Amino acid sequence: MSSETAFISALRNLASSTAARGLMDDAAVLNVGGADLVLTMDTVVESVHFLPDDPAQDVAWKLVAVNASDLSAKGASPLGCLYSHALGEDAWDTAFLEGLAEACRHFTLPLLGGDTVRMPEGAPRSFSLTALGQGPEGTEPPARTMARPGDIVWVSGTIGDSGLGLGILLGTRAATGPEADWLKARYRRPMPLTPLGPALAPYVHAMMDVSDGLLVDLSRLAAASAVGARIDLGAMPLSPAYSALAGTTREARMKAACAGDDYVLLFTAPAQNTVHIEAIAKAMGGAVRALGTIGADAGLHLTCEGAEIPLPTHLGYEH
Amino acid sequence: MSSETAFISALRNLASSTAARGLMDDAAVLNVGGADLVLTMDTVVESVHFLPDDPAQDVAWKLVAVNASDLSAKGASPLGCLYSHALGEDAWDTAFLEGLAEACRHFTLPLLGGDTVRMPEGAPRSFSLTALGQGPEGTEPPARTMARPGDIVWVSGTIGDSGLGLGILLGTRAATGPEADWLKARYRRPMPLTPLGPALAPYVHAMMDVSDGLLVDLSRLAAASAVGARIDLGAMPLSPAYSALAGTTREARMKAACAGDDYVLLFTAPAQNTVHIEAIAKAMGGAVRALGTIGADAGLHLTCEGAEIPLPTHLGYEH
Repeated sequence: MSSETAFISALRNLASSTAARGLMDDAAVLNVGGADLVLTMDTVVESVHFLPDDPAQDVAWKLVAVNASDLSAKGASPLGCLYSHALGEDAWDTAFLEGLAEACRHFTLPLLGGDTVRMPEGAPRSFSLTALGQGPEGTEPPARTMARPGDIVWVSGTIGDSGLGLGILLGTRAATGPEADWLKARYRRPMPLTPLGPALAPYVHAMMDVSDGLLVDLSRLAAASAVGARIDLGAMPLSPAYSALAGTTREARMKAACAGDDYVLLFTAPAQNTVHIEAIAKAMGGAVRALGTIGADAGLHLTCEGAEIPLPTHLGYEH
Repeated sequence: MSSETAFISALRNLASSTAARGLMDDAAVLNVGGADLVLTMDTVVESVHFLPDDPAQDVAWKLVAVNASDLSAKGASPLGCLYSHALGEDAWDTAFLEGLAEACRHFTLPLLGGDTVRMPEGAPRSFSLTALGQGPEGTEPPARTMARPGDIVWVSGTIGDSGLGLGILLGTRAATGPEADWLKARYRRPMPLTPLGPALAPYVHAMMDVSDGLLVDLSRLAAASAVGARIDLGAMPLSPAYSALAGTTREARMKAACAGDDYVLLFTAPAQNTVHIEAIAKAMGGAVRALGTIGADAGLHLTCEGAEIPLPTHLGYEH
């Protein structure tokens, strides 16, 4: 058990309020004045969550986008955000605010408050954002724990783009041209289709966003629900850019399924809701795809083109 | 204009939602489901907001206390908090969680969620906390802007203790013994009497907490309300420990009025509410004291023992 795992386990003991959902979900759900308030907080740190030479506008965009994605995954409509800014150089900070303004507009997440702090000389930049949303009408915000045997497993968009973009940015993968640019932008400016979450919420059982990698996130969802999952990597949607640069082989698909920062929705739903789900996604421009099914037996099982595939050692970004 | 001031001014342009209160108040006020939700976020950074050798438990306590104080100043009853933890050494982090648990219990601010992040080697510790509260029944959360000419200016506790405690900790002031220990504890473990804010809210006009120093905070409150204030430093309550170590001279009083981290309430109220205010404070153990009055003319005017006193160059911690 890593020290981070031990620390989070100690935190969970502390967070005994039902609103905390045992710190096992993407967000807290607090009932206030008859409404479900959905709350999430994410911090990004230079050299950990973003690269020192990432444009400031993109860092701000990502900070807003990842929180907006968490709200969407709980079926919540955005209400606003508070954020804490560690002051650095003026020009960088000004560019950051431009990106923040753009992202707050795009994700309809107005800035309500926060804090600005000075940092000691040489400290890495770090920014925290708390986003608030209002839970879906007439249904509980979907949790990771709500998957049931027989459910279909869905994703709402292409997998692996951001991970490949990061590889290109880091130089571990050589690529240039419009596809490479598009993939780099997917890493720097995640584009979760946030209105999809609230629209889908009444039709799903479990829902979360894919942030650490499809396989690791699906295994967490299954474990939280005390069920198992069987998915077909061949059904996993890949973007034209990903396919062009990495191919569509089993190995390319496995790499995509273990890469992080996708910020698409991963959800399970009863088979009879398929028509509704596909209609909603079509109306909103989301590319939903059924990947497999939930079963009563624990564990994650993969197939590709009809063959069973062993699980990789690392399912994604584990912490 | 400092670059921090310029940055905050740019932020204010961004925060155009009425819930943001122009980023001029201690907290945002968002109406959700018919209830006023009060939201505040504060970050503490090592070597900026706390000393590297401050006990971890006290750092956590302060993080919760300063946010609880902001909620109280808006008349809000605590609902819960989310916090972001920058992981460091295991023993320090474990001690931090002990202090966090203790403070969350003390201030009735249950932990609902948050984030834990790894930091690059050598980075200063930093922690952000977002606190949520429910606004007072039947009245708007009191803003800084609501002072009116004729109001009495009140504080809810002794002034200057934390600032003197910090001086002792930094060694700029030599002192030992029980009074010195008590003052150091006031810096490390602020003890805002948080239930007082919600109880007082129906009887006050403007309210805020004193965090940067009585004079600078009062001047901000007056400016936000487009009024002025006249207060008697002689009426300002000093603790027995402060009086014993620093005396009660005009100079000692001025020093206290310019020191930060008091975390008591500063509020203005019509004279006819005095009886209610004193009765509430007495019932809750708060030491409220009337310091002076609000007038129509802008500016801050000080007296002590009947004499006019010029304003000091630095009113407190300005940023």
